Amino acid sequence: MPNNRQIHLASRPVGEAQASNFALVNSETPVLQEGQVLVRHHYLSLDPYMRGRMNDAKSYAQPQPLGQTMGGGTVGEVVESRHGKFNAGDKVVGMGGWQEYSVVDANQLGALRKVDTTHVPLSHYLGAVGMPGVTAWYGLVKILAPQVGQTMVVSAATGAVGSAFAALSKARGCRTVGIAGGPDKCQYAVAELGFDACIDYKLHQDAASLSRAIAEACPAGVDGYFENVGGMVLDAVLPRMNAFGRIAVCGMIAGYDGQPLPLAYPALILTQRLKVQGFIVSEHMEIWPEALKELGSLVATGQLKPRESIAQGLAAAPEAFLGLLKGKNFGKQLVKLI
Amino acid sequence: MPNNRQIHLASRPVGEAQASNFALVNSETPVLQEGQVLVRHHYLSLDPYMRGRMNDAKSYAQPQPLGQTMGGGTVGEVVESRHGKFNAGDKVVGMGGWQEYSVVDANQLGALRKVDTTHVPLSHYLGAVGMPGVTAWYGLVKILAPQVGQTMVVSAATGAVGSAFAALSKARGCRTVGIAGGPDKCQYAVAELGFDACIDYKLHQDAASLSRAIAEACPAGVDGYFENVGGMVLDAVLPRMNAFGRIAVCGMIAGYDGQPLPLAYPALILTQRLKVQGFIVSEHMEIWPEALKELGSLVATGQLKPRESIAQGLAAAPEAFLGLLKGKNFGKQLVKLI
Repeated sequence: MPNNRQIHLASRPVGEAQASNFALVNSETPVLQEGQVLVRHHYLSLDPYMRGRMNDAKSYAQPQPLGQTMGGGTVGEVVESRHGKFNAGDKVVGMGGWQEYSVVDANQLGALRKVDTTHVPLSHYLGAVGMPGVTAWYGLVKILAPQVGQTMVVSAATGAVGSAFAALSKARGCRTVGIAGGPDKCQYAVAELGFDACIDYKLHQDAASLSRAIAEACPAGVDGYFENVGGMVLDAVLPRMNAFGRIAVCGMIAGYDGQPLPLAYPALILTQRLKVQGFIVSEHMEIWPEALKELGSLVATGQLKPRESIAQGLAAAPEAFLGLLKGKNFGKQLVKLI
Repeated sequence: MPNNRQIHLASRPVGEAQASNFALVNSETPVLQEGQVLVRHHYLSLDPYMRGRMNDAKSYAQPQPLGQTMGGGTVGEVVESRHGKFNAGDKVVGMGGWQEYSVVDANQLGALRKVDTTHVPLSHYLGAVGMPGVTAWYGLVKILAPQVGQTMVVSAATGAVGSAFAALSKARGCRTVGIAGGPDKCQYAVAELGFDACIDYKLHQDAASLSRAIAEACPAGVDGYFENVGGMVLDAVLPRMNAFGRIAVCGMIAGYDGQPLPLAYPALILTQRLKVQGFIVSEHMEIWPEALKELGSLVATGQLKPRESIAQGLAAAPEAFLGLLKGKNFGKQLVKLI
């Protein structure tokens, strides 16, 4: 069986995550049992939620166990199969983790899914036509409930979720405004992703200043806000929410290192009669088929042109992940493993 | 026409509201026009929302205009009518304001409603079978969506809203826990209002201590929380929320004087996948008939025995109102005007 390199969680972060929290380990892939499939990973997905799992704290996800391979989404190719539904050469998406190969019990519901790469590149099944895309779809469609002519705002606008959000929101006839860090990302958001406007939060020292910029970009106020970051950005958006506005809370990356991250004016939830709802897309599997169908169609027709930041080789994964947490990626962050 | 004493808003509060913000004014009731009804008020309702209207800030309600009679709910008796649907002697509920009489345009939809005092005392139409009761009903039924065996928590538990909340929540088979200020209120909550437990927040110096008391009173966690106060109490409840918990935000009385009132751990909205929703019951008139029917039945059958704090005479209204804001009332705060 082939040699398999893995990245384990070696220690839990104290404050900011460090490269030393990870360890590169050599192992061998085991002999397949009946019902199992050996997958060679082509791409590993890096996502902000992984930072939360590195903590030992109560959270929605089980903590990542120490001394084991980091969990994560992967796409790849079946190299050997002892399951009737999979054959060598099949392109598949699964949760293979931070390693070059995985052995998957294919009888486990949802563990492995065959994908069609005729119109959609394989890597996009980790981004626009995968978990991040479905995340944008669920938050927008099920929580923000957009209506034609309303204004929808998303933070981390050029990331995998934000990119998909823009295409989905524009397709519903909404003014769509992004918040991102730096002029390059903001220009790209408007020129390539279809945002009507994009605000560079790095130009603002405090929430009040950022909030004024949001007011300018959203002259009719904000009806729906998709939150990926929390902290100052949420404080800046909240005063711009219209009555009966909706906020989908998908991520609070600003607080993943454990620092306090208070919300300055929760009374606005009352005075503006807002709905603020947290969600995790993996708890809503029933909407995935509908969401993936729309996302696949948007990619195939060129309405959604997701950008990817690709690190090369498994050993590059930790640095790429730490960069993602600081917003250094530009589009969906992947690690190419072949 | 009879002499009519009124209380006007004389000035807007700077920080805490003061008696000097109000002015007692003498006037005369005008001659009735066609379609108008003259009502003599028996009781005036005092409610926390009135404090918000005293500010000139953007809020859900229009600010109370300076130099005009304070708005507010009233019950009373028709003394003269030039409208075919009302006759002298009818008992009515309306928004007559802080005055002894009001002239009502009875053609205006919802301005005046006849009530039946056979089984429900007139004053209760300002409390348990009025706006506060319907407020509890809407928040519980439409936002907290209680299921049998779940745990529902309410702050300001012995107030008009909290009292009705207890009866409605117990009727739905929920463990029902109150938060109130002082041993008398807590004892009353359990002995008379049907709460399974009541926590005295005044015994706790900080949110962490209060939160431990909530954990003890809610061994299975909190599924629904009805928020009347905000601040430390909300910070204490939030960490006790179960996954997919709901929070109905009805009031943030702790912040009405303008001091900052941050929420310490908004990230819990994400990690516990909470829904936090603000509402104002007057924007949901479609549910009033159903809610009033249930509340009237609970009162008539003795399942809901609301307590009232009654101040005597219009001149006593400002001090009673300021006491309400500090939690000095015990049950629904009214002013008796006859």
